[in-house]
Amino acid sequence: MYDILNSINAPADVKRLSAAELKQLASEMREALFNRLTKIGGHFGPNFGMVEATIALHYVFDSPADKFVFDVSHQSYPHKLLTGRKNGYIVDECFGEDSGYTNPEESGHDFFNVGHTSTSIALALGLAKARDLKNDTENVIAVISDGSLSGGEAMEALNAAGELKTNFIIIVNDNEIAIAENHGGLYRNLSELRDTKGAASANIFKSFGLDYIYEENGNDIQSMIALFKKVKDIDHPVVLHIHTKKGLGYELAEKNKEAWHWTMPFDRETGKPKFSFGDGESYTGLTINYIMKKAKEDERFVVVTPAMPGAIGLMPEQRAELGDQYMDVGIAEEAAVAIASGIAKNGAKPLVVTNMTFIQRAYDQISQDVCINNNPVTIVLNFASCYGLTDVTHLGIFGLAAFSNIPNLVVLAPTSKEEYLNMLSWSVDQTEHPVMILIPGNEVTSRPADTDFSEINKYKVEKAGEKIAILALGDFYPKGEALACALQEKLNITPTLINPRFASGVDEELLTKLKADHNIVITLEDGILEGGFGQKIASFYGKDCMKVLNYGLNKEFYDRYDPEELLRSLGMTAEQIVEDVKKLI
Amino acid sequence: MYDILNSINAPADVKRLSAAELKQLASEMREALFNRLTKIGGHFGPNFGMVEATIALHYVFDSPADKFVFDVSHQSYPHKLLTGRKNGYIVDECFGEDSGYTNPEESGHDFFNVGHTSTSIALALGLAKARDLKNDTENVIAVISDGSLSGGEAMEALNAAGELKTNFIIIVNDNEIAIAENHGGLYRNLSELRDTKGAASANIFKSFGLDYIYEENGNDIQSMIALFKKVKDIDHPVVLHIHTKKGLGYELAEKNKEAWHWTMPFDRETGKPKFSFGDGESYTGLTINYIMKKAKEDERFVVVTPAMPGAIGLMPEQRAELGDQYMDVGIAEEAAVAIASGIAKNGAKPLVVTNMTFIQRAYDQISQDVCINNNPVTIVLNFASCYGLTDVTHLGIFGLAAFSNIPNLVVLAPTSKEEYLNMLSWSVDQTEHPVMILIPGNEVTSRPADTDFSEINKYKVEKAGEKIAILALGDFYPKGEALACALQEKLNITPTLINPRFASGVDEELLTKLKADHNIVITLEDGILEGGFGQKIASFYGKDCMKVLNYGLNKEFYDRYDPEELLRSLGMTAEQIVEDVKKLI
Repeated sequence: MYDILNSINAPADVKRLSAAELKQLASEMREALFNRLTKIGGHFGPNFGMVEATIALHYVFDSPADKFVFDVSHQSYPHKLLTGRKNGYIVDECFGEDSGYTNPEESGHDFFNVGHTSTSIALALGLAKARDLKNDTENVIAVISDGSLSGGEAMEALNAAGELKTNFIIIVNDNEIAIAENHGGLYRNLSELRDTKGAASANIFKSFGLDYIYEENGNDIQSMIALFKKVKDIDHPVVLHIHTKKGLGYELAEKNKEAWHWTMPFDRETGKPKFSFGDGESYTGLTINYIMKKAKEDERFVVVTPAMPGAIGLMPEQRAELGDQYMDVGIAEEAAVAIASGIAKNGAKPLVVTNMTFIQRAYDQISQDVCINNNPVTIVLNFASCYGLTDVTHLGIFGLAAFSNIPNLVVLAPTSKEEYLNMLSWSVDQTEHPVMILIPGNEVTSRPADTDFSEINKYKVEKAGEKIAILALGDFYPKGEALACALQEKLNITPTLINPRFASGVDEELLTKLKADHNIVITLEDGILEGGFGQKIASFYGKDCMKVLNYGLNKEFYDRYDPEELLRSLGMTAEQIVEDVKKLI
Repeated sequence: MYDILNSINAPADVKRLSAAELKQLASEMREALFNRLTKIGGHFGPNFGMVEATIALHYVFDSPADKFVFDVSHQSYPHKLLTGRKNGYIVDECFGEDSGYTNPEESGHDFFNVGHTSTSIALALGLAKARDLKNDTENVIAVISDGSLSGGEAMEALNAAGELKTNFIIIVNDNEIAIAENHGGLYRNLSELRDTKGAASANIFKSFGLDYIYEENGNDIQSMIALFKKVKDIDHPVVLHIHTKKGLGYELAEKNKEAWHWTMPFDRETGKPKFSFGDGESYTGLTINYIMKKAKEDERFVVVTPAMPGAIGLMPEQRAELGDQYMDVGIAEEAAVAIASGIAKNGAKPLVVTNMTFIQRAYDQISQDVCINNNPVTIVLNFASCYGLTDVTHLGIFGLAAFSNIPNLVVLAPTSKEEYLNMLSWSVDQTEHPVMILIPGNEVTSRPADTDFSEINKYKVEKAGEKIAILALGDFYPKGEALACALQEKLNITPTLINPRFASGVDEELLTKLKADHNIVITLEDGILEGGFGQKIASFYGKDCMKVLNYGLNKEFYDRYDPEELLRSLGMTAEQIVEDVKKLI
């Protein structure tokens, strides 16, 4: 089955193959991709489209002396197959050895851990700059997909590349789609360039002062080899615009590119996912219901997203139904946030949606464009949690520390579906504050909730008690409930259980009151401790006799972990915390 | 002197003027600018170049129904002169009424507080989107200078603007220079467009799918009026590329555009600054000495800057001398940081320099591109302090909370020139850690310092004592010394004085030791308290009897304040802190 692939242990083995064998290799690589992806899932379309170009890259260039930087590196599976990591695809027991992204710890053929888009040109430009300072002569090649081009970091780097006077090769892998459809004028230009086989007079790459070559046959190995041979050792920056087919080699994926960008484990015959999630409620479904209803009722309501409609599960037909009340700006978090600020300033009601890990790109825009101006933008974030995305490049555990310390920003941490929807609804309609809402990362729970949150930083005492107060933030609220039970059971203490709701501030009145009949305060938060919620509480009580125990994650780049196991290793189970309390009483 | 200007109380008054009167108005406006700038300083070149275009804007459009967004809004002084705020320029006693940026609190003709570049297109696009949702019909106009175009936020928004189907006007004010010279391929394109009067086939704006008009006479009122009349109420996005002369009307400024971008109070006859800073040492001078020497000794050393060579005082001749060891990527913080990561990965030694307020733009790149990859990039930041830049848009007090909570990043806070230079030198040559160094915001002090900082998070006990420990971070170290004196004098306590050096971590060993003979720990930091250094200490001692008093700034957007007065209002003088301590002992 893997006759040729089995003989490939390093790129040198690729260079020895005949044209027919290379073709056979491509077919075997797709089989290897199927083997892994049907069983454990992963990025499908981007990798199936890049098989031929990757073979040609390794045929022509000499990795790792010549250096490839993939963007997003979720299209690097074919590269991994050819650089000594095929077992992660063809031997089921070895799946765990390979991450879903390039990873220097796995191989010297990888240079960066990359999970956010639009980084390759800048990172590669740095490699090239260092090469020149050292008087080395290798080729440096950035491989960027069309969807990643709209990110500011990519365009800044295209601009900077225009000043380089030495070897630099940018491969634009144009498969006509990002995750969802592309957005922005730039994509009309790419389309024109494809239609004219690169001859259109408007040319974004030439406008940045870059040399440019178009190649239509991005999925033909020999065409790719010829192209790469032409530019190998070139003495200036050049853009190779290659046209590939996302998902090539699997009819279902070729037809529905958005659905097959990333996949769960699936059945190859039918394309159906192997596991069913049941029909239970999800925060995704709840959010969609709210959005579709609100949009109908209020013409000033608009959803703004940096190419992540999936963060709240908006399907193409729903986007179509929203019409002008849906604005996808492409992968461009900075612009999304700034545009939302303008929308709010002019009296409409913007809801920005993406994942916590990606909103990090807009730290400055949230601070400057939104919060200094105090415009009522609502930002709803998925995966703002240690649950969900566990790849090191996609962690949602740092955002609380980053964003909760920006003045004027109200960060809300709902604990149940009712509270989430009430917060969402309140936030979109109020006009006083920029608001960030962290969608719970755990399963949907139900509890009655308030509907008005205009009293900023007002915590809610869910259950009054004594001696010990538990401040259980957001989706760690159930852990607070469990802890309350354990304290009752093991120590016969009925603690006060508090739902802080506001992650960005301190309820000084309530905390002061607690001093009367409490001597221990325990904080629980779903994020790193440093810079986060609990440390504000510890600081507040610094002068007092109150003991404060902060529980949260370490300031660390965790990678592919089991959340409950991680929390246990951090001493965060109810039983472990009870033991800590015992030492204090 | 201000015959016509005195009659202008609102834009309607501009519309009544004849061509000759408009010309006279321009001349009087320059006099008004001279009056303010010679006396209190401010942005010179950008405003002198925009007088005519601004008159024409108000002549043709109907502000505030029609909406202007300036980028950077330090070119909005002429706009202020015409919108009821002339007293801030012609009446010396009123200078304080006007900030140096657009400011909605000053006037309904301003929509955003804007001090960072590259925001106008996105913010204005948001205004336009809300207009469309509300079925309004006003013109929305973004005014962006060439230097701001290279920022990712601007290019992301250009791309998004390409999808708008309604009125949107982008004025590119091309004066051929940002603060220092422009960098990047984009600027060759602007130059080509100027040379061909807009006819060049490569056209960055058309590549984004935007309509485009070039106008050479950006400093001719009637040409500008004709241009704006042509596009008023246009039904789609259009770019007006206008050519202006930075500093027009003052020969010295026209000749040396970089020096006259921003000016201290100066003598109009000679151009010389009115105040002399003496020849004392500055961190700027120290940094330059280090850079010039290091570059000569080490060919792998390279300075990377997002258009802020001034942050460390690098003059044009020094940049020239550095040659390939100096890389200015234009206003593009994201790319600068990612490029530096690539440089470090490939074995060279990058030093990134800018101001704290601007590095906020690269939060995600520092986290993802640098820190996940743990590449030894050194980032040196000016104005990482409550001293120096006190405009609300340029505060350096939030960075510690933002960056010190990113894993792997070592944030160093030097307390003297020796320590600063030793940290800088250590950081550039080590290969283990990404490092951020906060240049002290106060005056240069001298004290012996260590040369090796490889024992991460190791605080330094500068003076051993008892009962009270003072952790005085970075440039607040002298405040720690003053507090130690005051405690000695007023309470007869000899406190332990600690220089933490590392702002991003806790020296658990030392803090544990302190428990033996100390019962109060006082932290002092030059930044907001929330998310910062002191709260880490408070959290560490949460379980213990140690009292912790955190002193720092509130989480607040301060604007144009006196630093010492602010610190006093926050209870941070030695005397005030002694009073707090008295209550605890």
